[in-house]
Amino acid sequence: MDKSSFHFSTELRVRLSETDAMGIVFHGNYFIYFDVGRIDYLRNLGIMKDGKSFGGFDNVIVSVKADFKAPSYFNDVLVVYTRIAEIGNSSFKFEFLVNNKKLNKLVSVGESVHVALDTKKWKPMPVPEHFRKLIRSFEGNALIEKRPK
Amino acid sequence: MDKSSFHFSTELRVRLSETDAMGIVFHGNYFIYFDVGRIDYLRNLGIMKDGKSFGGFDNVIVSVKADFKAPSYFNDVLVVYTRIAEIGNSSFKFEFLVNNKKLNKLVSVGESVHVALDTKKWKPMPVPEHFRKLIRSFEGNALIEKRPK
Amino acid sequence: MDKSSFHFSTELRVRLSETDAMGIVFHGNYFIYFDVGRIDYLRNLGIMKDGKSFGGFDNVIVSVKADFKAPSYFNDVLVVYTRIAEIGNSSFKFEFLVNNKKLNKLVSVGESVHVALDTKKWKPMPVPEHFRKLIRSFEGNALIEKRPK
Amino acid sequence: MDKSSFHFSTELRVRLSETDAMGIVFHGNYFIYFDVGRIDYLRNLGIMKDGKSFGGFDNVIVSVKADFKAPSYFNDVLVVYTRIAEIGNSSFKFEFLVNNKKLNKLVSVGESVHVALDTKKWKPMPVPEHFRKLIRSFEGNALIEKRPK
Repeated sequence: MDKSSFHFSTELRVRLSETDAMGIVFHGNYFIYFDVGRIDYLRNLGIMKDGKSFGGFDNVIVSVKADFKAPSYFNDVLVVYTRIAEIGNSSFKFEFLVNNKKLNKLVSVGESVHVALDTKKWKPMPVPEHFRKLIRSFEGNALIEKRPK
Repeated sequence: MDKSSFHFSTELRVRLSETDAMGIVFHGNYFIYFDVGRIDYLRNLGIMKDGKSFGGFDNVIVSVKADFKAPSYFNDVLVVYTRIAEIGNSSFKFEFLVNNKKLNKLVSVGESVHVALDTKKWKPMPVPEHFRKLIRSFEGNALIEKRPK
Repeated sequence: MDKSSFHFSTELRVRLSETDAMGIVFHGNYFIYFDVGRIDYLRNLGIMKDGKSFGGFDNVIVSVKADFKAPSYFNDVLVVYTRIAEIGNSSFKFEFLVNNKKLNKLVSVGESVHVALDTKKWKPMPVPEHFRKLIRSFEGNALIEKRPK
Repeated sequence: MDKSSFHFSTELRVRLSETDAMGIVFHGNYFIYFDVGRIDYLRNLGIMKDGKSFGGFDNVIVSVKADFKAPSYFNDVLVVYTRIAEIGNSSFKFEFLVNNKKLNKLVSVGESVHVALDTKKWKPMPVPEHFRKLIRSFEGNALIEKRPK
């Protein structure tokens, strides 16, 4: 994962409340930074409604992960790179890369997997076509798609 | 405010994520500790429904404050003392005292003022009689009451 | 407290993680927003070192308070107005006002009182003259000063 | 991963501040719950010093992940099961399972990978023998060990 392969980024500054007694950002708070990136990405596409429902359908996060390459400190400016890397039948995957702006140094990479949900039946549903189209148009050829047959 | 004047307490242990890069609990997190005490106090009285609505009526927090007497550190065991100190016409006041258990040392005192709300009209309403009765019975003579005329 | 009497402000956007199950920003998180404002104010004056030590001296927060006038929701843009309103002998007071940007509506006002600390002796010390000068110059006549005799 | 294969657990109750505007626990906060489990596990073994250094050596978290099976709500009691599942040459892996106590329902599974660090040289070092021994003794045959040659 290289930051040059992302087409969207969001800047934020590490808050005192996000650090811990070891003097660095508490590792769990990177998922807050990823979330800030994800929401900003969706807002940029004009499809943010709330955190759960965007693009006109509901979804849930089913898994997340993160690798930590270097610590961040209070007052560091971080750049969160965000993309949708894969769209499957009923799921799609966000990928994140966090870079220290001043040092131009990789801090963390991560991902979150979402499942499109028919909340009336509480069952997975196919990712809607208009959402696929929008992401395909934004991400271009790098997007990996597995279409329902 | 002395801890001997409280009739209810809740223990908690400082989490790493609650400390900050100064090595101590971030000051804003004491309001989370107060909230833990408040919810536990209401649960003990059997009137906890959710954080907003308890005892059968809605309410909103209109003001909070805290004094900080000594810092807390990762892994410290804190005892949060909680009481309802005053009930007015449509408002009531929680008071909190946080003590370091091992050192028997005062860490913080604080309060939150709540207003009973008729959420249909979105207007303050009198604190219901059954709630007054319950708190009066629990807190005894120390409770300050200003009754509607 | 009116926002026109502040000379400094900071914008932020409400994150999903800052809201709670009542659908609004958890009240304790306003102290994080105040902190973001405070750090930005100090950075603007060129005297931010870390959250504890700025302008070349250490200090501790001894009390905070906040009034809540209206709720904030996920994705709201808030403007945090920040000023140092008073400098005493060894203490100084920050004041904050949070406004909803889109609605131009008052959300919260608050304050934090800090004490300058000689960390070698762990005792209050006079607020240094260069810090007074800097704040006086920035805040102008509105600053309330109580000088040591 | 089945909860019967864990030998250690920690109870906690979902706080209002840990939920978000979707009405459920914000997904990133499960890493706080894992951390509570991890620290409690180490404390139980008598080797907790601080979050970074335990058992007499420093370590850093290099990766984490979590799967989410069911949401948690305000006031839910969760049981966090914790174990060290693997010890490699210079790394070791914690595994976590979170269960809803009242519903006896799986909420989340996760893991964190730590690397033992010689903080003088800032280089990975072998996991100390006394730490291996202690974990082996606690976890028994289920522990997967890759020893340095």
